[in-house]
Amino acid sequence: MTDESKIVFIGRKPAMSYVMAIITSLSASNAKEIILKARGQAITTAVDAAEITRNRFLKDLTISKIAIGTEEMPPREGENSSRMVSTMEIILAKP
Amino acid sequence: MTDESKIVFIGRKPAMSYVMAIITSLSASNAKEIILKARGQAITTAVDAAEITRNRFLKDLTISKIAIGTEEMPPREGENSSRMVSTMEIILAKP
Repeated sequence: MTDESKIVFIGRKPAMSYVMAIITSLSASNAKEIILKARGQAITTAVDAAEITRNRFLKDLTISKIAIGTEEMPPREGENSSRMVSTMEIILAKP
Repeated sequence: MTDESKIVFIGRKPAMSYVMAIITSLSASNAKEIILKARGQAITTAVDAAEITRNRFLKDLTISKIAIGTEEMPPREGENSSRMVSTMEIILAKP
């Protein structure tokens, strides 16, 4: 990966934390695009963060790609079988 | 809307309920595509339902489109301001 794209991993914080991370990443670097990566329940947060960023702050950002997938996660402690978790990737691009 | 596409609204049920709805819609009609629509937390369920359907049941389905957006919802009882809610649409197409 070059400086052209930055990844923001979406977790359990409020969407606004990731909005700030997106804005900071874009302004502090030469990045032309931001890749949001989320798993499971954080998928909703990723969509919220992308929408808030585009509607309220950086209105010229475009959504260049949205992809969904599935990942196998190791079993939780005390469980035997691995779990399948949905994943999502949203790419926001500068004009 | 014609018989060509069917909409499945994703809500609070387990993902598997919607997987069954997708499979039933596709087999009981001439529909060439299924449009999954979800808001808020149900977005994760929509991704889960799409992934489970494609990985376990109908392996030839393709994701022809994923779109995200924002909708204004009327205020809840006792609140004054309307809320913004993220939305998502996933289109699954037969080959």
